[in-house]
Amino acid sequence: MNSFTPTKDDKFSFGLWTVGWQGVDVFGTAVRPAMDPVHAVEKLAELGAAAVTFHDDDVVPDDSTRDQVLERFKKSLAETGMGVEMMTTNLFSHPVFKDGGLTANDRQVRRYALAKVLRNVDLAAELGATTYVLWGGREGAESGGSKDVRAALDRYKESMDILCAYVREQGYDLRFAIEPKPNEPRGDILLPSIGHAIAFIQDLADPELVGINPEVGHEQMASLNYAHGIAQALWHGKLYHIDLNGQHGPRFDQDLRFGAGNLREAFWTVDVLDQGGYDGYVHFDYKPPRTEDEDGVWETARACMRNYLILRAKARAFRADPEVVQALADARVAELSEPTLGEGESLDELRNATYDREALADRGLGFEKLDQLAMEHLLGVR
Amino acid sequence: MNSFTPTKDDKFSFGLWTVGWQGVDVFGTAVRPAMDPVHAVEKLAELGAAAVTFHDDDVVPDDSTRDQVLERFKKSLAETGMGVEMMTTNLFSHPVFKDGGLTANDRQVRRYALAKVLRNVDLAAELGATTYVLWGGREGAESGGSKDVRAALDRYKESMDILCAYVREQGYDLRFAIEPKPNEPRGDILLPSIGHAIAFIQDLADPELVGINPEVGHEQMASLNYAHGIAQALWHGKLYHIDLNGQHGPRFDQDLRFGAGNLREAFWTVDVLDQGGYDGYVHFDYKPPRTEDEDGVWETARACMRNYLILRAKARAFRADPEVVQALADARVAELSEPTLGEGESLDELRNATYDREALADRGLGFEKLDQLAMEHLLGVR
Amino acid sequence: MNSFTPTKDDKFSFGLWTVGWQGVDVFGTAVRPAMDPVHAVEKLAELGAAAVTFHDDDVVPDDSTRDQVLERFKKSLAETGMGVEMMTTNLFSHPVFKDGGLTANDRQVRRYALAKVLRNVDLAAELGATTYVLWGGREGAESGGSKDVRAALDRYKESMDILCAYVREQGYDLRFAIEPKPNEPRGDILLPSIGHAIAFIQDLADPELVGINPEVGHEQMASLNYAHGIAQALWHGKLYHIDLNGQHGPRFDQDLRFGAGNLREAFWTVDVLDQGGYDGYVHFDYKPPRTEDEDGVWETARACMRNYLILRAKARAFRADPEVVQALADARVAELSEPTLGEGESLDELRNATYDREALADRGLGFEKLDQLAMEHLLGVR
Amino acid sequence: MNSFTPTKDDKFSFGLWTVGWQGVDVFGTAVRPAMDPVHAVEKLAELGAAAVTFHDDDVVPDDSTRDQVLERFKKSLAETGMGVEMMTTNLFSHPVFKDGGLTANDRQVRRYALAKVLRNVDLAAELGATTYVLWGGREGAESGGSKDVRAALDRYKESMDILCAYVREQGYDLRFAIEPKPNEPRGDILLPSIGHAIAFIQDLADPELVGINPEVGHEQMASLNYAHGIAQALWHGKLYHIDLNGQHGPRFDQDLRFGAGNLREAFWTVDVLDQGGYDGYVHFDYKPPRTEDEDGVWETARACMRNYLILRAKARAFRADPEVVQALADARVAELSEPTLGEGESLDELRNATYDREALADRGLGFEKLDQLAMEHLLGVR
Repeated sequence: MNSFTPTKDDKFSFGLWTVGWQGVDVFGTAVRPAMDPVHAVEKLAELGAAAVTFHDDDVVPDDSTRDQVLERFKKSLAETGMGVEMMTTNLFSHPVFKDGGLTANDRQVRRYALAKVLRNVDLAAELGATTYVLWGGREGAESGGSKDVRAALDRYKESMDILCAYVREQGYDLRFAIEPKPNEPRGDILLPSIGHAIAFIQDLADPELVGINPEVGHEQMASLNYAHGIAQALWHGKLYHIDLNGQHGPRFDQDLRFGAGNLREAFWTVDVLDQGGYDGYVHFDYKPPRTEDEDGVWETARACMRNYLILRAKARAFRADPEVVQALADARVAELSEPTLGEGESLDELRNATYDREALADRGLGFEKLDQLAMEHLLGVR
Repeated sequence: MNSFTPTKDDKFSFGLWTVGWQGVDVFGTAVRPAMDPVHAVEKLAELGAAAVTFHDDDVVPDDSTRDQVLERFKKSLAETGMGVEMMTTNLFSHPVFKDGGLTANDRQVRRYALAKVLRNVDLAAELGATTYVLWGGREGAESGGSKDVRAALDRYKESMDILCAYVREQGYDLRFAIEPKPNEPRGDILLPSIGHAIAFIQDLADPELVGINPEVGHEQMASLNYAHGIAQALWHGKLYHIDLNGQHGPRFDQDLRFGAGNLREAFWTVDVLDQGGYDGYVHFDYKPPRTEDEDGVWETARACMRNYLILRAKARAFRADPEVVQALADARVAELSEPTLGEGESLDELRNATYDREALADRGLGFEKLDQLAMEHLLGVR
Repeated sequence: MNSFTPTKDDKFSFGLWTVGWQGVDVFGTAVRPAMDPVHAVEKLAELGAAAVTFHDDDVVPDDSTRDQVLERFKKSLAETGMGVEMMTTNLFSHPVFKDGGLTANDRQVRRYALAKVLRNVDLAAELGATTYVLWGGREGAESGGSKDVRAALDRYKESMDILCAYVREQGYDLRFAIEPKPNEPRGDILLPSIGHAIAFIQDLADPELVGINPEVGHEQMASLNYAHGIAQALWHGKLYHIDLNGQHGPRFDQDLRFGAGNLREAFWTVDVLDQGGYDGYVHFDYKPPRTEDEDGVWETARACMRNYLILRAKARAFRADPEVVQALADARVAELSEPTLGEGESLDELRNATYDREALADRGLGFEKLDQLAMEHLLGVR
Repeated sequence: MNSFTPTKDDKFSFGLWTVGWQGVDVFGTAVRPAMDPVHAVEKLAELGAAAVTFHDDDVVPDDSTRDQVLERFKKSLAETGMGVEMMTTNLFSHPVFKDGGLTANDRQVRRYALAKVLRNVDLAAELGATTYVLWGGREGAESGGSKDVRAALDRYKESMDILCAYVREQGYDLRFAIEPKPNEPRGDILLPSIGHAIAFIQDLADPELVGINPEVGHEQMASLNYAHGIAQALWHGKLYHIDLNGQHGPRFDQDLRFGAGNLREAFWTVDVLDQGGYDGYVHFDYKPPRTEDEDGVWETARACMRNYLILRAKARAFRADPEVVQALADARVAELSEPTLGEGESLDELRNATYDREALADRGLGFEKLDQLAMEHLLGVR
């Protein structure tokens, strides 16, 4: 029963900044040495991942060595068979971005930020990435007067429209994915949830090119149900990428390994992805805790994938269990897919129909029995 | 300086269920007798409100007395000059709605719910209401398997599309406003935030007829910034109505009087409404605490309006203060309204420009000075 | 593997108000008929529980029928072999308690509340209960000026001191357990957490007679780790009783069945109880969701006990697994039980010792490997 | 009315790490250069502060220059008339403390940590500090199996008992103050709230020497009411020191300037300190946002003190207002200070008295009127 070993077909990918996190936080300095991206690629390949992702600064922070570094990096990809499936721009670490990048009040900062993105969109295309993520962690405010939110949305739209036009023009096979987050490091961040991001995208000039990259912990920091969130994103056709990790509700961004934190929501997340036909990469964006040395880092990477596979097997067994099938029927879950109005029925017919409100109210829905079946599949006692 | 007395021009409105709340909660029974809607209308008129709003069941819970009750109610409106600016359907109190109304798994329940809405849309039009609110407090789930979120969105869309077509057909001067809420009474509610609701609306058949009715406390229960949320709603042209009250962050829905709870966010909320050109009704949706008798109820209603007027006066004084004007300029707030790309500028020009990253990073933004000026206006010490 | 069937030796108990909850909440009316306490006793006995608990008003709301009701109730206990292990007073449902019971501003209310507790302490002793719980859900405030917190603590202490003296005097075999909660139904409740309650108890006249009755969800509503909380309570010797249920972090009090909500914390909770030598009743305080009919109610009761037994088996298997034993050793968990200062060692010796800070910092702690082992025991894949 | 200028009599103090914060966070690097502690002392003196506080590493990170640095630092104190009122140990920044200091699993780390504290207790006494704070930010865990909480409490007690004995032995005029925090940087921190810390202190060998240093934001991160918390601490005689700042509820530790965040709770906080006879230093522990340059830093320091003075003036005006006095009487606030049992009254008398429950329930408490009066004092419109 210990066969939860990933293969490239599982399409697992990791940010280089995850296993490479050195542990700097607001209260402490680095606990681990810098990790060579090539080493990360090799180890992740060995563990069964299919691809890596990165911010420009994770791999090519320095212009003077850019070409050699990239050549060596590409060589490691070729040798390991690993892909670069997604890339993104670091618009948050350097102090120039202290008030944001694409929505900084300072126009010069915005121009620098946009130029930085454009340059790396080229790199992403060159490396074969098909998703370009924008996480606007510094796009936000700590106080009410300092940021004109509507102007910020105008500027964010301006940048996205430029980027989409550029990608079309260049003929790149690349889509954008916006990653929402409610707060941290800014007091309040622009596009704080899955919903806000999708709403924004629908008002862009080229909405087809832009979807979202929702992160488990970011939604849970706002007490929102991640599995519900990605279900709505799938409904809108906007789930272009995902960031899996773990979190304990509203508090600082914990970035625990996938499975840690809210385990039951992790189960439903995998179920929604599996049932909903998500076929993109299964991407982990987490931070190995500071207590770990490098061995511990690889343990967390291994566990992220392993937990996903375990949960996927359980979700499938749950759906296949005849007792579950019966409980779903008893709970009338599929009945929600039937139109409320009958085919050809008029509103008058609907309004004039008789409804025995008390009898309808008396029907138990059996949701708890169904949920306990899911629990027991999760716990492995069925 | 005690001149913060409302007039009908301020367009304040109250839900009849607010002042009429009897105090039943999960742990206790009614502390106040039922309030006659006509009495509520008269008292609110006396206090300076311009309109009332209600759920069908607040006024006409009983079919057998419906006509007389409505006649008497309309008479009180005529006599007081009060309007009904918004109406909504109670799809949550009766046990028939224990799994929701428009997205209940049980199709018969959905049909009953939709019929109930249709009937009251007619009443809303008859009474001259221009906004019809849908708060789907029971549309949701406590557990992962019991609700197919994508099917629920399909059904919600089906209902909204039917309702919009009906309103067009009838020629009613009525728009719909969806009220998001993250949780309570359901474990997780469909369309949990402003963003999720706007995204949903944009995929309806007739998005022009549907906007949102965001409530202060509902967004704050998800740690979201309400002032930012309504700014984004204004940006999308979707702020059709508002529900003002007070809340202390993620916990149960407190429904405090406006101003109580997060006072600084209340200030920015009023500022955004005032600056953003919101010209709808200023609607209060709150619950006078159980500690109050009827005198206390009217005290809270009076205070909601008074606090709004006080904050509006302060927000305007803040914007007019020359020192604030200077601080806004120093914080480059208006610079965010300038396009990032110059007129006629090419992306190559943007990319080839020189950016002195360190010099840009060194610039202080002066946001704290600006925020302290806002604080001192709020505190009345400037 | 489906052998998780409770027996009386497992000492499971249920509040009559749990299975008897009719589903009244702030937004809706009863979904289930009132449940006869005798029926509840019989069904719980059948399911394997050992005891029941109740508020006075759950069983004897009405003085005029008190004697007959009690006689019939005792008969059902005798016939089923069920005990009453804990009793408590309802100081929250009636409007008289709208500002609290033992700490209401109104002295007459306090007197009535204290008399109500005293009367039921007699009943508790008569029925053989050994724990008397005080949950002060209405002891609190919505606003800052209305409650003098220090005076409230004085009055709460006065009542507790009176109650302890009374129990000593009567020779009752009864201890008190205070149940903390941060908020709901009041805006902020007195003694909001495990810590606040223990601190308070230590300043009572007779601290030996008073401990705590912490509820899973109440601590989690304050983002606090319940397993850590009860570990601290055990450390103080104050874990006199427990209330198990489920919750999804800071939001309204969900009172889900045990296991639902934060499942991983439920695992550690059972582990702490098991390892920490807790030998009291395992008491469930939850609410069957409104979606359930009576069958669903019993399903939730059954599941509470079953989940506890499953988790207990898993926690024991975890502790017995040789790989876990090694991982605990690698993580130096037991080393924390060794005194920091050597026996007979002076502070000068400690201070003058040499510490190779960098070498110590380099040691990995292997916490993630250990946690993943726990995860896999929980998931049943080891 | 702009006279809110601090003097040394106001006893304001600042951590050197506050104005000296360079802005390193999980997502970004320093935005401001390191600040010379002597410069900080001079500027804070100029602004009206009375004292500074610091972690050992803030002033003397390097042994080789310790003596010169201290001499220069003391000279600046003498020249400015500033005191060092509190000192604390940095047991969190260096990677050696990645699993904690006094409760690290690794005994060598604990020994090093304890030696570090002892050494700096000497320095604190030498500099005339009367409070020594312990903030155990790294004393905690991310996962359930890695930390034995009861053993951790044993070790924390061992260290506190050693420290208290040492201070007695040396005859230092120094008390300890434990600073609770629920989480961040660890997943869950030992002694997470005011209550947990006081409970722990009461079980120490020498509880008189140990109190608490509660921080506004830390309690609010757990949704707890800070004003209530310090009222309970005063009740226990344990409010030895305070850390004032601002926070927006459960999320990352924002450390905003005092007044920002929950302004109404700041008002009640100042009122409790003023009414409760707190006569220690008014200490600010906050972080000037990364958007600010050095001018902005001083603006925030100035604003912390100014906001405190404004709120103190308002709280006093509130208490002195005859209408408030009447509203307090109507709300029966002082009645809570009257014993519930009459002098010489027996429990039988209490129990046999007649209570008109319905009449008592009907009494309105007028809390909202009282709260609105407080609101209007805060807003400066009375």
